[in-house]
Amino acid sequence: MGKIRRNERIGAMVKILCSHPNKIFTLNNFCEMFQTAKSTISDDVVIIREIFNKFELGDIETVVGAAGGVRFLPKLFEKDFEFIQDICDKLSVPDRILPGGFLYTSDILFMPDVIQKFGEMLATQFQHTNPDFVITVETKGIPIALMTARALNCPVVLARRENKVTEGSTVSINYVSASSKRIQTMSLVKRAVQKGQKGLIVDDFMKGGGTARGLMELLHEFEAEIAGVGVIISTADPEEKLVKDYKSLMVLKQVDEVQRKAIVEPSSWIRK
Amino acid sequence: MGKIRRNERIGAMVKILCSHPNKIFTLNNFCEMFQTAKSTISDDVVIIREIFNKFELGDIETVVGAAGGVRFLPKLFEKDFEFIQDICDKLSVPDRILPGGFLYTSDILFMPDVIQKFGEMLATQFQHTNPDFVITVETKGIPIALMTARALNCPVVLARRENKVTEGSTVSINYVSASSKRIQTMSLVKRAVQKGQKGLIVDDFMKGGGTARGLMELLHEFEAEIAGVGVIISTADPEEKLVKDYKSLMVLKQVDEVQRKAIVEPSSWIRK
Repeated sequence: MGKIRRNERIGAMVKILCSHPNKIFTLNNFCEMFQTAKSTISDDVVIIREIFNKFELGDIETVVGAAGGVRFLPKLFEKDFEFIQDICDKLSVPDRILPGGFLYTSDILFMPDVIQKFGEMLATQFQHTNPDFVITVETKGIPIALMTARALNCPVVLARRENKVTEGSTVSINYVSASSKRIQTMSLVKRAVQKGQKGLIVDDFMKGGGTARGLMELLHEFEAEIAGVGVIISTADPEEKLVKDYKSLMVLKQVDEVQRKAIVEPSSWIRK
Repeated sequence: MGKIRRNERIGAMVKILCSHPNKIFTLNNFCEMFQTAKSTISDDVVIIREIFNKFELGDIETVVGAAGGVRFLPKLFEKDFEFIQDICDKLSVPDRILPGGFLYTSDILFMPDVIQKFGEMLATQFQHTNPDFVITVETKGIPIALMTARALNCPVVLARRENKVTEGSTVSINYVSASSKRIQTMSLVKRAVQKGQKGLIVDDFMKGGGTARGLMELLHEFEAEIAGVGVIISTADPEEKLVKDYKSLMVLKQVDEVQRKAIVEPSSWIRK
């Protein structure tokens, strides 16, 4: 292949690292790939870290120890607040108000680049908990669960609203939806979660917190730990939710069907 | 910010391009970012393209014209066949056979890096059709739809099995499941698709092709065009499906509950 220049190594390493956030690549990986010494790769990593700092592209972290290496980690920057603010502005338009006081959000919540960014932002808040998996319940939480899991480099586990014969034996629980007060069921395939694993609960929307509460109970059934709860949008009302600790990216302050007014704002923790 | 070196420009450009596959960035974008001349950026792009060829990381395409610029496109390489073969081996184990002759695939189909790769592979087959959106029906097709849409830089549109009051007025169709012969319903929010738009149908699994057929009929109701049909796994039996043209990444040849044998193989078009 001939001698590989620093330019080339940096370009290739950035692509490989960023395609797999939070995945640790050993320096030997790159030594073999580029037929070069470890010290050279170490220098490359330092340069990449500086680039990522300078242009606010994320973190390049060196992990020491036997399982050590280098990884790309998403990071929050000032400009991410502007990104969220921009999405809030797009959601806060009368056109989106649906009968019943609901807000139409599906178009934005199914745009891959938006959801990828959201997933990375949620991941920054739970990275330190090292979850084994992200768990959500069908349906609209799946994209954000997948993109959060992508940023954390772990699988998604999907709870279902009904048993599916095509997935094997399941554990089911009943829970009460906080807003409608109705009893609902969710179930999870037995082989999906092992005892002692840690799951991060992720969903698109939280009103009363009943669904997140249900997922917590489901994890208890599996004797699994809970890494945290993250959602894209939470409602300001009710203030008291069935889940105490959670992170939301945006807060739905108001949807007024009569006045045709919707207000969505970035969550306060993002501003800092 | 001081003078920015080529190393730095290349590192930052690779990150930005690869975070948004198929999205065109103007050279002016980068000129402003790096405070440098267009000719310098053009040279950088040539270098990045060479890196991506050399290390089989994808395509860097220059798009000419008023809306021109540069973009990253996923591309199929020899090693992708090995990747698919490896997944096939993991799926072809007796442990995965479920009562009823189903195969447990949810763990693998919910691993973000696997699904990202699958989405990029499907996208390479439909890039030239320039779809406006990717459409799927809940539930298990959502991850592959999202990752295919990510690779194509377009949104996902989600058809539902039942009407949701929280999403506004819908169009519904009935269709017959090819395998179970049962009549099913799917519906799509009216505002999700505009007349004349082009949709790519994506799902995780195809047996008889009834679901894909249903999605085609749903798109007809919206007077939308069909860019194609792509799935992760199709079954060898029945050979004759309700959909003629489709691309699948893998073929489920056999699941034998009694003999405890499952065979999944890469689709033939991937070998070439």
